[in-house]
Amino acid sequence: MKKLLNDPADVVVEALAGMAAAHPTQLRVDLDHRLVLRSGGAVPGKVGLVSGGGSGHEPLHGGFVGRGMLDAACAGEVFTSPVPDQILAATTAVDGGAGVLHIVKNYTGDVMNFEMAAELAAEQGISVESVVTDDDVAVQDSLFTAGRRGVGVTVLLEKIVGAAAEQGRPLAECAELARRVDDQGRSMGIALTSCTVPAAGRPTFELADDEMEVGIGIHGEPGRSTEKIAPARDIAARLVEPVLEDLGVGRGERVLAFVNGMGGTPLLELYLMFNEVHRLLDEAGITVSRSLVGNYITSLDMAGCSVTLLRVDDDMVDLWDAPVDTPGLRWGG
Amino acid sequence: MKKLLNDPADVVVEALAGMAAAHPTQLRVDLDHRLVLRSGGAVPGKVGLVSGGGSGHEPLHGGFVGRGMLDAACAGEVFTSPVPDQILAATTAVDGGAGVLHIVKNYTGDVMNFEMAAELAAEQGISVESVVTDDDVAVQDSLFTAGRRGVGVTVLLEKIVGAAAEQGRPLAECAELARRVDDQGRSMGIALTSCTVPAAGRPTFELADDEMEVGIGIHGEPGRSTEKIAPARDIAARLVEPVLEDLGVGRGERVLAFVNGMGGTPLLELYLMFNEVHRLLDEAGITVSRSLVGNYITSLDMAGCSVTLLRVDDDMVDLWDAPVDTPGLRWGG
Repeated sequence: MKKLLNDPADVVVEALAGMAAAHPTQLRVDLDHRLVLRSGGAVPGKVGLVSGGGSGHEPLHGGFVGRGMLDAACAGEVFTSPVPDQILAATTAVDGGAGVLHIVKNYTGDVMNFEMAAELAAEQGISVESVVTDDDVAVQDSLFTAGRRGVGVTVLLEKIVGAAAEQGRPLAECAELARRVDDQGRSMGIALTSCTVPAAGRPTFELADDEMEVGIGIHGEPGRSTEKIAPARDIAARLVEPVLEDLGVGRGERVLAFVNGMGGTPLLELYLMFNEVHRLLDEAGITVSRSLVGNYITSLDMAGCSVTLLRVDDDMVDLWDAPVDTPGLRWGG
Repeated sequence: MKKLLNDPADVVVEALAGMAAAHPTQLRVDLDHRLVLRSGGAVPGKVGLVSGGGSGHEPLHGGFVGRGMLDAACAGEVFTSPVPDQILAATTAVDGGAGVLHIVKNYTGDVMNFEMAAELAAEQGISVESVVTDDDVAVQDSLFTAGRRGVGVTVLLEKIVGAAAEQGRPLAECAELARRVDDQGRSMGIALTSCTVPAAGRPTFELADDEMEVGIGIHGEPGRSTEKIAPARDIAARLVEPVLEDLGVGRGERVLAFVNGMGGTPLLELYLMFNEVHRLLDEAGITVSRSLVGNYITSLDMAGCSVTLLRVDDDMVDLWDAPVDTPGLRWGG
């Protein structure tokens, strides 16, 4: 196994300790509960944003903790849901009196454990709203999911709703906005290689040297089909077309276009892919209002990429542009 | 070959086009000369900063073009030096009357071509100073280098000297600062896998499943030794110790610590490595004043990492903290 680690059982805790050491002004870490928390504690009067899920998708979610984005992220073991106790501890820690929004990717374990934590938090008098992301158009159900999987749109949602919470918008409004972002976003991805889970020590699945998996999930779940590797322009079309069709976006409309790396694909190729995606959107008469290119929701060392398109309105663009100060996304004053 | 591309011959130009589409407010691209240029053109009275080199190390250098860092980056073919004409075009484009600083990684072709361009620019009446980075302690000479290779410190130098130029410091002062940063920084890296150059289509070198290359260069040049893969804590020691020894930094001093990914290693592992590096420095009584963790100077899809330590003074820390607005590094107002 070609990995930088000590004991595979300690990967998550040791990486969290590294995050805390690297970003002392933005965040702190609760190693007992495996939480990444915004430094400075709960912000009075601000809706608290909590997300989380299995580890192995970095910078999601811990790398998006900080001013203008998440208040806390719960780190499960690699590709394993965080437990209700963790999520409850995060919810309690970030409640500033205005309630807490749970942002949950649609995987059965995540949904169940966040629900349980929300009930426990409610018993303690904390108002909790939950939004589940389910933007992956590749498959209707999957190994770990009833309904669509939550993937790339989660990154965009955490940024946009994080900015809304920072402005002081109330919980119901943040939750409504979050559902609207999920509703307006769609994704699809491909893998060129498998990932290797540290505890397993071998690739999750096999792909021949000339094959790619189209419609892959972020844990190596099977996609729509295994196909021969194609030129980037054809791969871009295989991703953009089903997204556009499902989203029902067309000429004259505008989107935020996000080309995401799965972890093992270099930036050079991601920019090349973005060039193809941008051209396809241009040809379809769709305006790219904002864009994001890089490794933001990954699958360990998997090579490949995903495309997420989000139909944006003025409010969403303003919230996207608002200042953010996290390890993974950082801009503005 | 598991890559997202069309014709391997077009990788660089197509990726540059993607960068221009993704970052229209920060930069523009001259596809004829294969340049990434800060948007808005030369800044009157400001020293212009030009760097460049072979492609395949992204985000270095094009991703560091923008306010507070580089004014232009010259993109060679993958792992191939840019030519003097490109460098001259960049130098001319960014000259705002205060002269131009060339930042050159120590590779024979790069040094020669930047020198030639500097002479041509001087004939046109442009003042040019050059600084060559040579921070890699692994080997004294290498396949492509007389003397030490220029690696991770280049990223830190471009940020720090970019801020100095933004403040209006004159050319001689920027050049002196750049040489001081190079002099105060050292690096060493390891590879767990080879990279694959698109035009070659196969791995540059072979490593067995249980081997790593210690002291690797950023083009897959051989390092000090091929060894059995070790736990992260031992790898960290194999990198930190020669760097500390060569730099002569010790108890009571302070550094900027930079754990850099080679492109194919996920962030989870880089944070885990940073945790080990931070612990070693702590045990040695060295203060980590600032840190950087992520993929900043890469070798295509190579798995592995490098450690760079820079002995910092107050001025360097202030310049590091100053606002920067590039695709690869972005913070502040």
